[in-house]
Amino acid sequence: MNREEEVQSAFLTPLEEVETRVSRLQALLREQGLDGALVCHPVDLFYFSGTAQNGYLWIPPEESPVYWVQRSLERARKESPLREIHPYPGLKALCSRIAGDQGSRVGLEMDVLPAKDFLRLRKQLPETDWQDATPLIRRVRQAKSPFELGFLRKAAGLHAEVFAEIPGMIRESRTELDLSARIEFALRRREHQGLLRIRRWNQDLYYGPVVSGTSACSPTSFDGPVGALGLYPALPQGAGRKELEPGDPILVDVVFGYNGYFVDKTRTFALESLSDEWLEAHSLCRRIQDETVRRLEPGKPCSEVYAEIVADFEGKSPFWPHFMGCKDNKVAFLGHGVGLELDEWPVLAPGFTEPLEPGMTLAIEPKFFPPGKGGIGLENVYLITDQGTEKITDFPDEVVVVT
Amino acid sequence: MNREEEVQSAFLTPLEEVETRVSRLQALLREQGLDGALVCHPVDLFYFSGTAQNGYLWIPPEESPVYWVQRSLERARKESPLREIHPYPGLKALCSRIAGDQGSRVGLEMDVLPAKDFLRLRKQLPETDWQDATPLIRRVRQAKSPFELGFLRKAAGLHAEVFAEIPGMIRESRTELDLSARIEFALRRREHQGLLRIRRWNQDLYYGPVVSGTSACSPTSFDGPVGALGLYPALPQGAGRKELEPGDPILVDVVFGYNGYFVDKTRTFALESLSDEWLEAHSLCRRIQDETVRRLEPGKPCSEVYAEIVADFEGKSPFWPHFMGCKDNKVAFLGHGVGLELDEWPVLAPGFTEPLEPGMTLAIEPKFFPPGKGGIGLENVYLITDQGTEKITDFPDEVVVVT
Repeated sequence: MNREEEVQSAFLTPLEEVETRVSRLQALLREQGLDGALVCHPVDLFYFSGTAQNGYLWIPPEESPVYWVQRSLERARKESPLREIHPYPGLKALCSRIAGDQGSRVGLEMDVLPAKDFLRLRKQLPETDWQDATPLIRRVRQAKSPFELGFLRKAAGLHAEVFAEIPGMIRESRTELDLSARIEFALRRREHQGLLRIRRWNQDLYYGPVVSGTSACSPTSFDGPVGALGLYPALPQGAGRKELEPGDPILVDVVFGYNGYFVDKTRTFALESLSDEWLEAHSLCRRIQDETVRRLEPGKPCSEVYAEIVADFEGKSPFWPHFMGCKDNKVAFLGHGVGLELDEWPVLAPGFTEPLEPGMTLAIEPKFFPPGKGGIGLENVYLITDQGTEKITDFPDEVVVVT
Repeated sequence: MNREEEVQSAFLTPLEEVETRVSRLQALLREQGLDGALVCHPVDLFYFSGTAQNGYLWIPPEESPVYWVQRSLERARKESPLREIHPYPGLKALCSRIAGDQGSRVGLEMDVLPAKDFLRLRKQLPETDWQDATPLIRRVRQAKSPFELGFLRKAAGLHAEVFAEIPGMIRESRTELDLSARIEFALRRREHQGLLRIRRWNQDLYYGPVVSGTSACSPTSFDGPVGALGLYPALPQGAGRKELEPGDPILVDVVFGYNGYFVDKTRTFALESLSDEWLEAHSLCRRIQDETVRRLEPGKPCSEVYAEIVADFEGKSPFWPHFMGCKDNKVAFLGHGVGLELDEWPVLAPGFTEPLEPGMTLAIEPKFFPPGKGGIGLENVYLITDQGTEKITDFPDEVVVVT
């Protein structure tokens, strides 16, 4: 083992961690009457095996999982503590290994597995009743273990170091892109993994938007609240060519990724003190954040937190119709789970009736985007515990005026 | 229109460009007897409409396409020259618009569309015979227009500027990550879009590997030939913590992305002159590259170019068993198409029997990865024309020794 491999060994997922994760999924498989889940999405593979090598991980409801690896078997065996790791035997052989009695019910990651791969599986096992296992997997993944929280805390610490450097990077007439590139460089040198991971198949994101003034409210195809003009139509998101100007809020909403785990944080910077209108909007965001956090109690349904906050703050600002992707005066969401993906469960949104649980990590991100003006707000990651809510991200919430 | 929007307007895809692309797909739809293609992958949407907004683009075999946009309709209307752009009416209404007679045959992007979305469509239109339209789309996209080549050439020029700066970034005992972060910063400030796009659903890549010595032959899950230890198991690819050392080839295989278009280039750098063994391997890579390029003639099947080169060079080096992902002494491939995705058609590989066409852009990347030693090689992008092959990438092919 060389020095770099030795450093990497400190990141390896322990056997008992993997076993706990697998057994939590197995309990849900039994509850749903499934005869197993066939996992092949790289993020889920990493979660349940400790390695992200291409292949199929078969998780039956009782016995130990079996991982058939296409590439790289050698690496999978080095990184994963699972005992059953074998070379991929081809689809036919794999299907004969997972085939149960006629009418067996097998879970797949239906939201990410391409139709083509699904149809191939169905052709091999036409009698199987294929179910969507993604909701079960997302439910297991939403509560983080102490081992996972270690990476999230590490990411948060490195993230805070970079935010402390941002005021020194901001200069009048620098472009958003220039500022973003400097921030990315600072993040990356601290072992940010670079790549972000979003579950929804047709969404992607670079480090996150660094936008100022009106570009923050330009329409985009991205599912988040922050707008962006971007550089060109091929990638309608993130930093663009707009120059930083006094009076404009500069919204830095970037992610830190460390061994797969993401923390998401937003702060507003400015070249001179912002107008009262902007400052009032920002202070309302802080009140909404604090009020939301106060209501994050285990057992409380997410949709209830959302409904209470909306009822409390609706109309409390002339900017209200432009709060968090408001459409027909309906606020899209208040916060979202973060972990191995940026769009994890739970979501503080209508319809998300599942209760909060200890171990959940939520990015709360109140933001306003008045059209023709720009965007302002903040975002922090919080951990739900039985003893109250813990703030994971670090850095003062205030608007930072660069002098 | 503000200044930034004005700059962006220079990137807009003209109507006749979009019409040509659509009509080329329509010819294939008619040839295959399809009653239309329902496009929803962001990259394909951008190609056929000029905007990458989420939604469904319906391309019938004869009439004009219709684009139903979920988000953002406003931006789609600004960026796309298509005439028929409407708000997304919901899946049921959309399906009733595309439903033909009983037994109609409709193409979908089966390799990227998730099973869940496919099953929803099938539920709405149970009589429809759903086909895979991706091979048709890939075939249309593989030959680039002069408009597209403009972006590829621009990317290549900016890429070359950054490569000229790399020798100044290389220092003994700097880590791969440190070097990679500096390269990424230089790329990004030149308006590199950041995000790379790979079609295969379970593959992702950051800027591309910056690896040295033994980490270049560490096994990874990535489909390319270059290995990497990376930073941690969650992302087993790209630059890691290995320090740059004299005697090690430093492989820089990074991509430039400009308005969606990617050029891919590899050069080998070193802190002192490499061993004769390495230099012989590199010079063989250059001969393989030049010999491959000489054979890139319109009309010639890709698999034939591959077979000829392998027959010519097989066993010509003690490193041959470690050439380009060799497995059981079989070379995986010699080069791949590049454009809006990094894994475009064509591929110089067995089984890829389609002939070369003018307008195709191919990354040719001969590389050796002797286990326990490292990796060496080069990569350039070439354009096939009727008047011979044009090199798109720029920068001397030689190993660059940093003094």
